[in-house]
This record gives sequence, structure tokens and C-alpha cells, in this order.
Amino acid sequence: MENFNFYSPTEFVFGTEGELKAGEMVKKYGGSRVLVHFGSNSAKKSGLLDRVCQSLEDEGLFYVLLGGVKPNPRDTLIYEGIEICKNENIDFILSVGGGSCIDSSKGIAAGFYYEGDFWDMYLRKADVKKALPIGTVLTIAAAGSEGSGASVVTKEDGMLKRDIVSDLVRPRFSILNPELTCTLPPYQTACGITDIMAHIFERYFTNTLEVEVTDRLCEGLLLTMIKEAPRVIENPNNYEARANIMWAGTVAHNDIVGVGRSQDWNSHGLEHELSGLYDCAHGAGLAVIMPAWMEYVYKHNVMRFCQVATRVWGVQMNFENPEETALAGIREFRKFLRSIGMPLDFEEIGAKAEDIPVLVEKLGVGDGVRGGFMPLNREDVTNIYKLAAVKQNI
Amino acid sequence: MENFNFYSPTEFVFGTEGELKAGEMVKKYGGSRVLVHFGSNSAKKSGLLDRVCQSLEDEGLFYVLLGGVKPNPRDTLIYEGIEICKNENIDFILSVGGGSCIDSSKGIAAGFYYEGDFWDMYLRKADVKKALPIGTVLTIAAAGSEGSGASVVTKEDGMLKRDIVSDLVRPRFSILNPELTCTLPPYQTACGITDIMAHIFERYFTNTLEVEVTDRLCEGLLLTMIKEAPRVIENPNNYEARANIMWAGTVAHNDIVGVGRSQDWNSHGLEHELSGLYDCAHGAGLAVIMPAWMEYVYKHNVMRFCQVATRVWGVQMNFENPEETALAGIREFRKFLRSIGMPLDFEEIGAKAEDIPVLVEKLGVGDGVRGGFMPLNREDVTNIYKLAAVKQNI
Repeated sequence: MENFNFYSPTEFVFGTEGELKAGEMVKKYGGSRVLVHFGSNSAKKSGLLDRVCQSLEDEGLFYVLLGGVKPNPRDTLIYEGIEICKNENIDFILSVGGGSCIDSSKGIAAGFYYEGDFWDMYLRKADVKKALPIGTVLTIAAAGSEGSGASVVTKEDGMLKRDIVSDLVRPRFSILNPELTCTLPPYQTACGITDIMAHIFERYFTNTLEVEVTDRLCEGLLLTMIKEAPRVIENPNNYEARANIMWAGTVAHNDIVGVGRSQDWNSHGLEHELSGLYDCAHGAGLAVIMPAWMEYVYKHNVMRFCQVATRVWGVQMNFENPEETALAGIREFRKFLRSIGMPLDFEEIGAKAEDIPVLVEKLGVGDGVRGGFMPLNREDVTNIYKLAAVKQNI
Repeated sequence: MENFNFYSPTEFVFGTEGELKAGEMVKKYGGSRVLVHFGSNSAKKSGLLDRVCQSLEDEGLFYVLLGGVKPNPRDTLIYEGIEICKNENIDFILSVGGGSCIDSSKGIAAGFYYEGDFWDMYLRKADVKKALPIGTVLTIAAAGSEGSGASVVTKEDGMLKRDIVSDLVRPRFSILNPELTCTLPPYQTACGITDIMAHIFERYFTNTLEVEVTDRLCEGLLLTMIKEAPRVIENPNNYEARANIMWAGTVAHNDIVGVGRSQDWNSHGLEHELSGLYDCAHGAGLAVIMPAWMEYVYKHNVMRFCQVATRVWGVQMNFENPEETALAGIREFRKFLRSIGMPLDFEEIGAKAEDIPVLVEKLGVGDGVRGGFMPLNREDVTNIYKLAAVKQNI
């Protein structure tokens, strides 16, 4: 196990009617002038936004609204948000939405105090040194952004995706009410589930030896997803299954299951170019790219793939042919993704094999190598995209 | 799943040579005049205390030393600590030791601001309203006190054990260096392992339905202990096994695996009277009482005991006779405890069956009922102590 620091100070308020505590929580963490940042109109239509605003009013807090966050949140809205925060002397951002909305809020929070163009921080030309405090009312189980210091934003001009990671943009509190996720359609639900599983796998595939505790915790979360996912796809109003998925999503991404080990994150990297170019859902892109990545890299450590195949997917170990076991695990993963309605290849997300050179170019690997479980050069990432383009008859 | 709040703001600094960062961390969290509270002479002899004090000096921090914490920490030392903190204008407590030392530090931290007798808070006659900030350098994997708001203290006069639970006494930071645990003798190591497993089981045995995510996380931690425990008993210097156990111990008790569900804690309650009366190690008392508790309550939910038997202990499910499966799991637990050198019955910890009425009296159950997985009245706890007194030929 490697040395590490673990710090997860976000207070989680989990359960029914949590959004009614939004005002109380903002006040507890020192907010008085609040930017309420939200995404689609569904928060408006469902009455969620009204309930949140009412709870702010009940505490006597000033607020302004900024809606319009899209999936794969754009830099353009962040510039607008920073402007509003400056004009209105905002001292707290309350993010009401999913991962995109929270990521957008983090961009605004960090950009507020930065004197230049906030995009510099996403290009790693500048560090995040100060940020407005953030709270969230989460409406989708997936991103893990509610408990993390990470934010991914897309530059409208060129559709370039980049990220920042800083404790300063970690939410002070996150309100998690599984009821709010019950209205999410099956496809988006499945995308969220895929994203959660990817967050676990990106940590699971490591070169660090002797990390049984985090291995077992990762496997526990994956087993939870395998049990609960079909239940919410079958009945979107299954509160208990929604609750288990929502908490698993948070635990999967606050890094408690990923400390002390090298991680991968190449599937996320390769996917970002897919959803950047084709504007598909992040989870859908992951369903296409992650199994392809697994097929390409499994020989790097066959035994690790056998471990997940046997412990998580219930495959019997083939001691005469471990590679067969490893591949069976990957096949089970694809079958699971299909069973919850996910796409599995390029065609199904509107991607084109002839665009692969463009994807590779945007990824910016150049003549270098992307680190991770298995180092990947230009040829490797090209091959992974090619595997992702192969038609899957599952 | 039940509604819950989860808040675990402690910063964990995990890995080799962590104690050299003690001064830096105290400073980061605002300390300038430090009470260094420690237990046995081993921290002195090993040079650990010198290294910690040196790191405080390097940061220009004032400190005073207070040693002498015993296992099952006493109220008497806490009175002394409060007095020193007042006389020396202490503003930070650095606890260098195991669970007892940290629990003692929490008593001092809460008592410092309380105008009356600090024991009032342990008797639940008063709330903890303010406390000195605490940091820890943990020397034993076990108590979980390094990440929790709980403190258990024994009143010297009458050997009465009572506890407080408050976020205000949660450590601001905890330094976890597995190297420091390598000098711990096998018996104390095994006691710590038993305590960690008990912390998991107390959360695992719940009446809350539909808690797959926390069930799976608990099982993952138990499987980790089962793999790693024999390795440290065989080779106390196995750093990797020590590291896995140490992090499992922390995760087991910061409640991330226990949220959203009713918990039990009756084994801890019944054990506290054992170690209170006989001054045996807490973990040894748990090894005696917890399997006895399981034998007494398993019929309350046979399927839950089958779940742990099959998922954790590798027992094959007997579908014609589930009770047999449940009992096989309990037997495997006892065999595991024996394999790491733990006592299994009253005689082995110097307890006497004829003292049972005294134990029951001290427990203070009276004519009432102790809540938990299965409610226990006076007769029930008497029966559990009787089962714990039965000679175990394992």
C-alpha cells in the first residue's frame, strides 16, 4: 500500500425530504447571499426548485437563480455565473442538479477569485487558490461530484474537455434524497449506474500490490450495483434500490475505496473525447469504451482480471486457462451493461470509426504516454478506440 | 435504508514516517500550546515520543507531557489532564497512543470547558458543548477512536465504564503509520483485530432492511481481516498486512459502513462490564462475549446469519436447514478467533460464572430492555453471560 492523505469533510444529509433542509445547511456553513445554480427545467417543473428556494427564504437568505446547465457543462455558462456572483456579492453557491451542475458550480466557485480567465486552471496553467463555498442538492446518483474536489468542463469552442481537482471546491455539504432520482428515465439512470461502476473500476485496476482492503471495498460496491441496478430499471420508483445506488455512488467517488493505490482513469480520459465530440451521455460513452479498454489491457495483469471475474461476476476460475476467466469477466460486464439498456459500440452512440484519428488528436497524447494501469501511447489508444468501434452482438 | 447524516471531517495521514508530520499538522489545525498525552512507556522507549516532540519543536510549538494512560482509561487521569490544560493554557491535545489514550484525550478535551465534574457528561447528565481540538498519532490498529466522536472511560471508584459520543471530540487529524504497530505483541495485535471485527459486526446485525451497500462494505472489511490477521500473527513485521488492518480499522469505525441502519452494540455493552470488572483487554472480552451473543440471538434473523456465514466465512448454504448454516458461521468465527490466539470463554479471561449477577447489576439493565438487533432484558443478558461462561474446546 502506498502512503496517502484522506480528507473528506463534506457533510452528507441523506434521505427523504432532504431538500427542505437546504436553507438551514447553507446558513450553517456561513452563506447569506446565494447563487442557486441548476440545470434542466425538470427541477423547475417538479417543484424541487421551489422547495429549495422556499427553504432559503425561510432562513432569510438572499438568492439569485442561474439555470441552463447542460450535460457536459460548458465554459460559457461559467463565465456568466462568475459575472453574476461578482455583481450580486454572492458568498455561497447552492448547486441543484446532477454531476454536470455541480461541476459547473465548482468552475464558478474557483473562477470567482481568479483574476484571469478561469479556463487557465482547467488547462493547468494556474492553481486553484481560493473558491466560494459550495453546497449541493443532488438529483442524480452518478457523478460523485457531490463529495469530490473534481470538476470536468467542456470548452464550447472546439468541444475540449478539461478538469481541475482541488479540496477547495469540495462541497461543504451535500443533500442526497433518493426520492429525487425516481423521476429519472431508465436510460439516464443506467448511464449513472455505468458511471458509478467506472469510478470503481478506475480505482480497482492498479499496479499497487497488497491493497486487499480497498479491493474488497471496491468489490462490495460493484456487487451492490449488480444487485440494485436491475431493480431500478424494472421499477424506477424503487426507493430502496435508488437509496443503495445513491450512497454507493458517493462512496465510490470520495476516494475512500481508492486510497493508497495507483489508479487508472484512462477509460474516463478516452471517453471524454467521445462525449466531447458526439455529445453523448458520459455514462453511455463509458459503456462503450471501458470494456474495450479492458479487452486491450487485461494481459497486463491477468490475475487481477480473474479476481474481479470470480469475486464480482461469479465466474468460476479456470485454473488451466486463467485468460479465459479474465475474458469471461469482461463478457459478463458487457452483458450486464446491455441488460440495463446501455450501448456497447461506436455505432450505438453515433460515433464513427473514421473519426478515430480526430479523437486521438484531441486526446493530446502526442508522442508521449498516458500513465495508469498500463501505459498507453498513441498506437494503444488508437487500438482501444478501434475495439470500441467493433460491433457488439450482445 | 434509514435517513442519516454522515460527517467524517478528520484528515487521515497514512503511511510510513507519518509521526514526523505531527508538528506541521498541529500547526495546520491551529494549535500552539500542546498537551502531549500518551500511554505506556513503550512510546518513550521506542523513541516515538522523542520524534513527535522534535517535530513540535521544529514548528516552534510549546508542549507539556502527560503519560500514564492505562488500557480501560481512568477518570482519575482525566481530572489531572484537565488541571494541566487549565494551568498551562493548552489549546490543542495531541494523543500519542491507542484507543485508550485517544479516549482519555477526548475526556480531557470535553472536560476542559465543562464547569462541573466532567463525569456528568459520561453519565449523560450534561451534553458536550465545547471541546479542545485533538490530533492523534495512532500506535495500534483497533479502536477506531482516531476517526470517531466516541470515548469510553472507566471510573476508578467502582470500575464503572461509561461513554460520550460527540462530533466535538472527533480528532481534527489522525496520523496512521502502520510501522508503529509492528512492535505490538501478537496477543495485543489479536485483541485489536477482534475489536475491529466487533465494530463491523455491531453494525452488520441490523433490523433495517434493504441495506445492501453497507452490508457489502462490512463484508469486504471482514474478508480483509480474515486474510490479513493470520499474516501479522505469523510475522509481526509484515508492513503490508499491518497497513491493510490499520485502514480497515479506521473505515470500520468512522461509520461509513454503518450509516442508514439500526445497529446493535450489545456485545460492546456486555463486554465493558467484563473488562471493567476483570481488567482484561477489551478485545479479549469481545472474543468471549460476541460469539456467545450470536448463539443467543441468531434465531431472531436466521437468514442474516446465513448471509454472513456464506459471504464471509465461506460456508455452503444448507437450504434444507438454514439454522445449521447460521451456526456453522458462528463456529467459523470462534475457530478464527482461536487461530489468532484469542480466549473464548470466561475461564480464559479470569472471569467467574458466579459473578454473573454482579455483571448484570453493573450493566444497569434493571427491569428495562436494552435495544439493538434483538431487545435484551435482564434474563437475556444473564443467559448470554452464561453462554460466554461455557468452556469452549476449540
